[in-house]
Amino acid sequence: MEELDTKEKILRGAESLFMRYGVRSISMDDIARHLSVSKKTLYQHFADKEDIVTMVARGHMERSQAEFEAIRVSSENAIDELARISVAMKKHMEEMNPTLLFDLQKYHPRAWGAWNDYKVKFIADSVQRNLQQGIDEGHFRAEINPEIISIVRVALVELAFDDRTFPQHRFKLSEVQMQIFEHFVHGILTEKGKKQYQKYKENLIVTITR
Amino acid sequence: MEELDTKEKILRGAESLFMRYGVRSISMDDIARHLSVSKKTLYQHFADKEDIVTMVARGHMERSQAEFEAIRVSSENAIDELARISVAMKKHMEEMNPTLLFDLQKYHPRAWGAWNDYKVKFIADSVQRNLQQGIDEGHFRAEINPEIISIVRVALVELAFDDRTFPQHRFKLSEVQMQIFEHFVHGILTEKGKKQYQKYKENLIVTITR
Repeated sequence: MEELDTKEKILRGAESLFMRYGVRSISMDDIARHLSVSKKTLYQHFADKEDIVTMVARGHMERSQAEFEAIRVSSENAIDELARISVAMKKHMEEMNPTLLFDLQKYHPRAWGAWNDYKVKFIADSVQRNLQQGIDEGHFRAEINPEIISIVRVALVELAFDDRTFPQHRFKLSEVQMQIFEHFVHGILTEKGKKQYQKYKENLIVTITR
Repeated sequence: MEELDTKEKILRGAESLFMRYGVRSISMDDIARHLSVSKKTLYQHFADKEDIVTMVARGHMERSQAEFEAIRVSSENAIDELARISVAMKKHMEEMNPTLLFDLQKYHPRAWGAWNDYKVKFIADSVQRNLQQGIDEGHFRAEINPEIISIVRVALVELAFDDRTFPQHRFKLSEVQMQIFEHFVHGILTEKGKKQYQKYKENLIVTITR
């Protein structure tokens, strides 16, 4: 039990450092110092930094998958789901260091592999499912091809993190992601759907800020 | 004069082969055979295939830039311009071999460089200018950030050509490009703008098919 606690404590501490500062700039020393534990303790639980990074990435993706699943089951319809995702996504992107994703690609192949599985198996599938549901409900434009547009959506999530495309000294990750997300949503909604989307969002923001 | 004609004839002949079959699969022999000229004649006018590919690419981009400029000046407003671009783009994409762009990236760095200049200097600028114009006219959503969304648009044009993202045995380039384009347009238009966009497009299609 004590074992589990320490391991979990290290993972949570490392995750909060990675989220704030990215992965590359954080060393085992930084993690030990941040948690006021010895490096010896870190190496009792993890082989190396790569090991911590991979477990943090997997845990983070599992929790966000669970969060999006909870949103899906609690949503009245495909529009309500999009409105809730928009609010959740804004929060995530404001907490995330923009270098995070491409640090994984460059320096942590195992964690990058985990992201690619998550991207293809979970994000693409749930976007395509939401698109088909919204079309069936008559809230999304019937001309949309759910397979093509879900692939586009996944590519855009990644694009927003790309420093060559959106240099961090000129663009704020959360603004880029939300510009892209809102444009994506308006591209699929019917006119009736747009009015409902705005209403759902306003209610959510009231609930949250109350 | 005769010189110019031959050179121009070679470039046009090579371009039609590249458009139909891509660049990689076409040899100097194929070009000579297609034009019923000797390879000696080709090498009198061009150093090598790379030389032909680069000049074909530059010429193609100059003509399409001129075409889009002509559309801009003849358009009543930003929506009319989008409607005309949508019709012109569909035609181009139906004529183009999907491997074309990434053949350049892999095997023809000079021509790929020309594409990247064109992409950044012309496409991104004219999309951003069209977005700002549409917002000022009240036809596009005021929440749009023209700089971010124009960068996204350019990335999407390229994405449609990417065989890892849209494998050619499963997706038709022209359908992917038009799905992406129509989604993009619906993402920026106001409700009033959408009605006008449909009207402009219907008129254009009538004019063309008449």
